[in-house]
Amino acid sequence: MEDTGDDSRVLETEAGHSTFDGEDIYAEDGSIRSDFLMHVGAAIADGDLLFLRRHVARLHESEMGDLLEAIQPEQRRQLVSLLGADFDLAALTEVDEAIRLDIVEHLPNEQIAAAIGEMDSDDAVYILEDLNQEDQEEILSKLPFTERIRLRRSLDYPESTAGRRMQTEFVAVPPFWTVGQTIDYLREDADLPESFSQVFVIDPTFRLLGAVDLDRILRTPRGTKIEAMMRETNHPIPAEMDQEEAAQLFEQYDLLSAAVVDENGRLVGVLTIDDVVDVIQEEAEEDLMRLGGVGDEELSDSTIETVRSRAPWLLVNLLTAFLAASVISLFEATIEDIVALAVLMPIVAGMGGNAGSQTMTVTVRALATRDLDIHNAWRVVRREAGVGLLHGLAFGLMIGLVAGFWFHDGNIGLVIAAAMMINMCAAALAGIMIPMLLDRAGADPAVSSSVFVTAVTDIVGFFAFLGLATWWFAIR
Amino acid sequence: MEDTGDDSRVLETEAGHSTFDGEDIYAEDGSIRSDFLMHVGAAIADGDLLFLRRHVARLHESEMGDLLEAIQPEQRRQLVSLLGADFDLAALTEVDEAIRLDIVEHLPNEQIAAAIGEMDSDDAVYILEDLNQEDQEEILSKLPFTERIRLRRSLDYPESTAGRRMQTEFVAVPPFWTVGQTIDYLREDADLPESFSQVFVIDPTFRLLGAVDLDRILRTPRGTKIEAMMRETNHPIPAEMDQEEAAQLFEQYDLLSAAVVDENGRLVGVLTIDDVVDVIQEEAEEDLMRLGGVGDEELSDSTIETVRSRAPWLLVNLLTAFLAASVISLFEATIEDIVALAVLMPIVAGMGGNAGSQTMTVTVRALATRDLDIHNAWRVVRREAGVGLLHGLAFGLMIGLVAGFWFHDGNIGLVIAAAMMINMCAAALAGIMIPMLLDRAGADPAVSSSVFVTAVTDIVGFFAFLGLATWWFAIR
Repeated sequence: MEDTGDDSRVLETEAGHSTFDGEDIYAEDGSIRSDFLMHVGAAIADGDLLFLRRHVARLHESEMGDLLEAIQPEQRRQLVSLLGADFDLAALTEVDEAIRLDIVEHLPNEQIAAAIGEMDSDDAVYILEDLNQEDQEEILSKLPFTERIRLRRSLDYPESTAGRRMQTEFVAVPPFWTVGQTIDYLREDADLPESFSQVFVIDPTFRLLGAVDLDRILRTPRGTKIEAMMRETNHPIPAEMDQEEAAQLFEQYDLLSAAVVDENGRLVGVLTIDDVVDVIQEEAEEDLMRLGGVGDEELSDSTIETVRSRAPWLLVNLLTAFLAASVISLFEATIEDIVALAVLMPIVAGMGGNAGSQTMTVTVRALATRDLDIHNAWRVVRREAGVGLLHGLAFGLMIGLVAGFWFHDGNIGLVIAAAMMINMCAAALAGIMIPMLLDRAGADPAVSSSVFVTAVTDIVGFFAFLGLATWWFAIR
Repeated sequence: MEDTGDDSRVLETEAGHSTFDGEDIYAEDGSIRSDFLMHVGAAIADGDLLFLRRHVARLHESEMGDLLEAIQPEQRRQLVSLLGADFDLAALTEVDEAIRLDIVEHLPNEQIAAAIGEMDSDDAVYILEDLNQEDQEEILSKLPFTERIRLRRSLDYPESTAGRRMQTEFVAVPPFWTVGQTIDYLREDADLPESFSQVFVIDPTFRLLGAVDLDRILRTPRGTKIEAMMRETNHPIPAEMDQEEAAQLFEQYDLLSAAVVDENGRLVGVLTIDDVVDVIQEEAEEDLMRLGGVGDEELSDSTIETVRSRAPWLLVNLLTAFLAASVISLFEATIEDIVALAVLMPIVAGMGGNAGSQTMTVTVRALATRDLDIHNAWRVVRREAGVGLLHGLAFGLMIGLVAGFWFHDGNIGLVIAAAMMINMCAAALAGIMIPMLLDRAGADPAVSSSVFVTAVTDIVGFFAFLGLATWWFAIR
């Protein structure tokens, strides 16, 4: 720490990453620099411990995670076994599940247990929860009693709950202590969490009474009693609460950390915003993936896994595609007469599909962020209907003119313009009503809206265009 | 605060929201309870200040934001003017831009200036930055000198930079102070930020030397010198850094707050994770909206604004739709002969489109999170090609059988199966290569991938199916 006065070090890399040969280990595009990877690869092959300890073991856990993801599976295992106790298992919280399991399986349980004993409990649980029952038990059995009890308690809460994500290390004091006593306790007690931002106040049965932020403790005279300065913990989180719901509380009330309590109001842990950031990101990502028709896949999944996970969605789309095709087949005779209809019909269906997916995207996102609710639903539905109508008029006119000139037939222009207007309105209504109805029915609108909206715009598009054409050319 | 010992209050509502009539103000679906809204509406109409001060002024700023969004524009303005100085302007950071501007325009500049003087500088800047130059100047001129200088400095940094988002209030001490001196300073100095989690260490010219977390100060003996215990601030953020880049640093290194420095390494502010959470969420949302063909729209936008913002995307899609139609028109003669082709062709194009958008969604997301880079690109491209091939085989077979039986013609089944395989492979390659090439070219893959991918799957789909059919039925 002596060199902190030299601020060329502080600003060494603009982006604050670790360095190799005096330069950022990341290239411009955010991937790890190729020459650094080459050096690491060579050092692994040569068993060059000096290089690995000096340049690799010092990396931040997230940088180590990126490195592990960038090298080959064989190299990964060698690197981890070469580093031995110098390998920081926390890096495993930063990699894909598949890579994590692969590395953990190749590590002796003794080493995992030793590393887990050193970790924050939330990181430890993150690694333990993916292991099979047997390995989990073996590792837990090697840990000291209190550590074991704590981790078991977290693991006993269902997946994706606050109880699973919480950190079980926290600082708690009784309400009758003074600021001075609290500071003395913090100075003397060696068994504190690695870092903390508030002190909880509990009664003798561990029931949560309140909390005091550290800055409050620092600016209050030593004689003041904790109970006189503690604040209500307005947002204690029940351990069984879904992590997504907990994340929404953090966002709504700008929390940095929150107490986690069991069903009797007893303090069992603390949830911190860095865990919640991951949850927030996962949730936003989930909606995006689901709208795109993909589920929980990871980039490291194999071809077969990917084929399996995406096929159901394609199958559902195949069924609706056949439905649309059967609508077309109703008008085979008309198409035989006027083949231009076959040329133009995908335009009507496709434009409807695009307009519908615009409205649907906005609706699904607004439902997810709870911006769209019963108080403004009617206004938004009216707006979308208006948008559909205006887009229908504008694009109907445009397409009508182009189609009329293309096939030298004003009637074709007239029919496609009318069909376009109908389909744009149908698209707008389907785009907003379908996600809202799915949401009201308790289904996730991100998962299935897309199929239904496309089905509507295809069917209405083909039916309106071919039906109008059949009628118009018959009565003309 | 006397009642904090009564923990029925602490756990009053499961979700930790404010209450009305003893119950959560939010309904099950996350919207504000209708009967609460009705009472608020009546109180606004009657000018019932007692009710408003008791039940509305006490709401958390984010709850107040939700309330403002749920009531009518006229009610909003009345509510704000009825509450007067009791209205917490911080609630304006929680509403849509349109609502914020509307309310601010109806407030006297004196009231805004008074409220802004009380706020954290990051919230103040958030409100000021949307105002027109004139109002901004008038409000700033009413503020005390140091306050004004601080806000001007933030506003001088470009939009979406760390300098704009930072809080200019922070605690900084010289390195030669002891822990005791620091604690005494914190106890005596009234002009501290409302809350803080670290103390920065600076030299006499304000250059950043390091930082000390509050928990470190609390657990270290009074006699220890700050310079002996400070840590390097490994991730100081240049004020000009884009907020998105800053957010990535927070995520990668699990930061809770970071020093913001100017071009000379002087400490100018602090960026905290709650600001960064908003940025992270906006970024994920942006990708989702762009993939769905919508830009930066808000739910409160008018019909005309929405029509305008979505039309360009529809226009681009119209052009590619005409391109696809012109491909079909090449084969008019074949369609006239075999009208079943017109019935089936949307299936080939549509399935390709869906498969392509699956691959594209995964690729765009992986590029955004920097999971996909040159080190694994080749492996992922091979995987996607494999997925396309296998899906092509499976769905080609299925569609071939159904189509063959439907039209009692094995040749049609054969042709559509082959076209399907070709288009599924094209979809896979377009889905991964197009976003990657756009990214490499410096464009945002989320914005334009979708148009190009659909263009490829439509054109290849129609061309392969109709072309193969023309050739096969000619040589047969």
